[in-house]
Amino acid sequence: MTAILLIHCPDRQGIVAKVTEFIHGNRGNIVSLEQHVDRNAGRFFMRLKWDLERFMIPREKIGDCFQTLIAAPCGMEFDLHFPEQRLRMAVFVSKMSHCLYDILSRWESGDWQVDIPLIISNHADMQPIAVRFGIPFHHLPVSKENKPAQEARQLELLQAAKVDFIVLARYMQVLTADFLSRYPNRVINIHHSFLPAFAGAKPYHAAYERGVKIIGATCHYVTGELDAGPIIEQDVIRVSHKDSPDTFIRKGKDLEKIVLSRGVFLHIQRKLLTYGNKTVVFG
Amino acid sequence: MTAILLIHCPDRQGIVAKVTEFIHGNRGNIVSLEQHVDRNAGRFFMRLKWDLERFMIPREKIGDCFQTLIAAPCGMEFDLHFPEQRLRMAVFVSKMSHCLYDILSRWESGDWQVDIPLIISNHADMQPIAVRFGIPFHHLPVSKENKPAQEARQLELLQAAKVDFIVLARYMQVLTADFLSRYPNRVINIHHSFLPAFAGAKPYHAAYERGVKIIGATCHYVTGELDAGPIIEQDVIRVSHKDSPDTFIRKGKDLEKIVLSRGVFLHIQRKLLTYGNKTVVFG
Amino acid sequence: MTAILLIHCPDRQGIVAKVTEFIHGNRGNIVSLEQHVDRNAGRFFMRLKWDLERFMIPREKIGDCFQTLIAAPCGMEFDLHFPEQRLRMAVFVSKMSHCLYDILSRWESGDWQVDIPLIISNHADMQPIAVRFGIPFHHLPVSKENKPAQEARQLELLQAAKVDFIVLARYMQVLTADFLSRYPNRVINIHHSFLPAFAGAKPYHAAYERGVKIIGATCHYVTGELDAGPIIEQDVIRVSHKDSPDTFIRKGKDLEKIVLSRGVFLHIQRKLLTYGNKTVVFG
Amino acid sequence: MTAILLIHCPDRQGIVAKVTEFIHGNRGNIVSLEQHVDRNAGRFFMRLKWDLERFMIPREKIGDCFQTLIAAPCGMEFDLHFPEQRLRMAVFVSKMSHCLYDILSRWESGDWQVDIPLIISNHADMQPIAVRFGIPFHHLPVSKENKPAQEARQLELLQAAKVDFIVLARYMQVLTADFLSRYPNRVINIHHSFLPAFAGAKPYHAAYERGVKIIGATCHYVTGELDAGPIIEQDVIRVSHKDSPDTFIRKGKDLEKIVLSRGVFLHIQRKLLTYGNKTVVFG
Repeated sequence: MTAILLIHCPDRQGIVAKVTEFIHGNRGNIVSLEQHVDRNAGRFFMRLKWDLERFMIPREKIGDCFQTLIAAPCGMEFDLHFPEQRLRMAVFVSKMSHCLYDILSRWESGDWQVDIPLIISNHADMQPIAVRFGIPFHHLPVSKENKPAQEARQLELLQAAKVDFIVLARYMQVLTADFLSRYPNRVINIHHSFLPAFAGAKPYHAAYERGVKIIGATCHYVTGELDAGPIIEQDVIRVSHKDSPDTFIRKGKDLEKIVLSRGVFLHIQRKLLTYGNKTVVFG
Repeated sequence: MTAILLIHCPDRQGIVAKVTEFIHGNRGNIVSLEQHVDRNAGRFFMRLKWDLERFMIPREKIGDCFQTLIAAPCGMEFDLHFPEQRLRMAVFVSKMSHCLYDILSRWESGDWQVDIPLIISNHADMQPIAVRFGIPFHHLPVSKENKPAQEARQLELLQAAKVDFIVLARYMQVLTADFLSRYPNRVINIHHSFLPAFAGAKPYHAAYERGVKIIGATCHYVTGELDAGPIIEQDVIRVSHKDSPDTFIRKGKDLEKIVLSRGVFLHIQRKLLTYGNKTVVFG
Repeated sequence: MTAILLIHCPDRQGIVAKVTEFIHGNRGNIVSLEQHVDRNAGRFFMRLKWDLERFMIPREKIGDCFQTLIAAPCGMEFDLHFPEQRLRMAVFVSKMSHCLYDILSRWESGDWQVDIPLIISNHADMQPIAVRFGIPFHHLPVSKENKPAQEARQLELLQAAKVDFIVLARYMQVLTADFLSRYPNRVINIHHSFLPAFAGAKPYHAAYERGVKIIGATCHYVTGELDAGPIIEQDVIRVSHKDSPDTFIRKGKDLEKIVLSRGVFLHIQRKLLTYGNKTVVFG
Repeated sequence: MTAILLIHCPDRQGIVAKVTEFIHGNRGNIVSLEQHVDRNAGRFFMRLKWDLERFMIPREKIGDCFQTLIAAPCGMEFDLHFPEQRLRMAVFVSKMSHCLYDILSRWESGDWQVDIPLIISNHADMQPIAVRFGIPFHHLPVSKENKPAQEARQLELLQAAKVDFIVLARYMQVLTADFLSRYPNRVINIHHSFLPAFAGAKPYHAAYERGVKIIGATCHYVTGELDAGPIIEQDVIRVSHKDSPDTFIRKGKDLEKIVLSRGVFLHIQRKLLTYGNKTVVFG
């Protein structure tokens, strides 16, 4: 068993020594340690993973002890994770299957240590795939009129399933600020452009119109502002004058699924820390 | 000796056969042929290079004959190039040397078959480099007040030097529409972002603020609209939370010089055709 | 309906004119044309796609006519394809699912216009996936002793299913030269390294030992010499000292499936021509 | 003023705490800390940079103190650097200028905080460039017969110039094991292939023969075994059937200079640690 601390606080002397001494002094064996200082923001960030085998503080007391002894005096914010606890992930989809298959095949093969208690969609198209993988599928069509009611229903389902985070696998609906406030930095989206270029609808068509030579995809946490949340991961692929909007879409699908899955895997591994609309991605 | 035709016209049957028959029938040997059809625009594009050794039409008559026999009946626009004629290239710079050295070293080594009759700058910093390479350097400081006068002077120098095209190697001044009208699709710029993201000033700082995971550079023909001309070439490099605006700038310099030089080399090889604010880049 | 010609022959004057005149003169409308000359080999290559709607030669006679009128006099080899005819593709797998899912999801979504009449494996692990997609699965365990018998059985199944080409989706058996002679340039493999580096077994471990900073995957046609057939497509991803053989394997899986699928899609689109242990990949 | 420690030792509990406590307890302010554990090798690696402003141990005593108090008890090997001390770099070249210009322009612009006391070459071609930049150039032609004598002369020059490390900027001679023993992990080479593919002579021609779709360049420390030393950095670029050995060479030049310069810059920043024929590249 291991534990992971994700930390940020104002930068000042001695933080690394203090935190590593806390772990070491209580017989924890540090498995990995990464730290980062943002000199512009004067902010210190750290991810620390240690082995709990001989750690003298019982699991359920670690958070309290760390808060009292280290975090409070340092003005530190932290998250404590036990990575052997499998996260529970909901997947939202619409009509396209490429990201969904990519996610489900990683989960099924055991590459991702995660549970998927439910899939939610505004269309019925993906139901057969969910059935094949034995995952409950909820068809909740969304219109202007029923959106508040359907979001309430979604939230009920997510809470009943004890969902930790949500993956929008090309889900073509905007979530309300109210919904997002329940899962801060826990809703992951894939946008089919190299943000901030081509935010919003039809990015491949816009990229085609502009005559770009490279297209991209962006995985980000969702915030109230459309396509403007903290970026987790991006990647690109070359295009040329020989491409049409249709081949942009086809090439883009490969990017979307890989970039989304990389981002989700970072989240599953608790390697992401968000601060000031940016992510720190620990290696 | 060879000739190159760059062609575009409304798409219709038989154009390839007609043009290749024109070359072949006059004993030209086709060295390379690339064609492209933009189905959305209903437009046909072709680049054709052929050997003039036994070609029966004298060089100076080729344009006329082609216009009369092929271009006019097909509603075709074309450019005729003789690639053994070295193009004459002006370089505009400001204070940074990385793109300038990259260009001059390619020219000096003979990788680029081009003449560089002059370098123009709004600052004196690069003069010693120009001197080392034996290229006339003109220091023309630009202010709001003297801009029209200085552009007039620049145009005089360019015309006197029989310049074919202009490379803005991180030249930090906006050229007027009037200036640009003299060199349509013949002014090449490097913008230090992945356009259309972060057009305008300080793109690395804007990219840093947005928290992107990849930065880019864009080589494009300059038009009256800032950073909005036809894109010739783009490339990108990964960044992370460990980077600062300063390391964005440092990493970006490598991109800028390579992307600019790739774009310029395509122009020198007459591989670029512009249509509707996009480029067709023949391989 | 369209037809595609893939051509190669000794390079000489007038081939493009001759071929395009053949199409045009018989009222075919050329949809796309790409040609390439390998000056070292003195060899001409072309891919030509045209619309059959008003083409005056009936489909079943095109091959004969072209052979007689063009190919024979020019010493030309050619393949004639009718891309609306769906190719029939067999998939060979062993124990890993990532390439298989990638293939099946593209097929199911209709992105690939191809039929998959059977999946063959030396292990039973992938059977449930085949069942889900409704594709017959044949479990043919291979040992040193039974290899000839099992290959004979495989060939029977392939012939009965009228298979056009075979995809080895991380199939961990070497096929015999005899087997391969039945499907020349029609067996596509993915090798999990950047060939020619790390041919053979355990390439990720070998790459780790060597301390490379980039790993790759290579899609190629299978020939009698192990991992030495014509390369269709390659791609790479960065690794670092932080990676272990396990994370090489994990990162490599994403490469493998994308690179294999790109290669297979090129084959499906009839964009691949093989000559002298190399591929010409038409855009 | 800052100091940098590069450390490796057998992995065991408490090393981070011990080292950071050493810095912190002596009033050093840690600027950056990166650690890595190679679980296969059971080996711990760290790079630590700290501010010396209030550090209580005088600069000239730091090494001794650290050796006695920390390194010896932990079985640790370490290098201590003071990055404000400019390294002295020799450049070896033959006939090609692209890497040389790339290096000199970075040095001249101040992007690299390094001194270049001399350039050595087996040909006279690059002398004019050295002269332009005001750097002493030594023309030492090498033949089978005079190699020992010329290497002795090179070593004299290097020692007289107090050179810290050597960059082989496309130097086309193999250095002897004896020579290399004087500069262990301090001779940096660029090889024009994606190692370990195409080691040795004419890699672009070999890559062309093999029909690869991507070419690469590799920056590595030179050891007695040709092209087999610890890899520092690699990068790649796409090629196609349209490329010839000549265009491989042209495209490769851009890779070579950028990859070499990235590797050299890592060395200058003291971000490289070598262990067991591999490099640890600290971010």
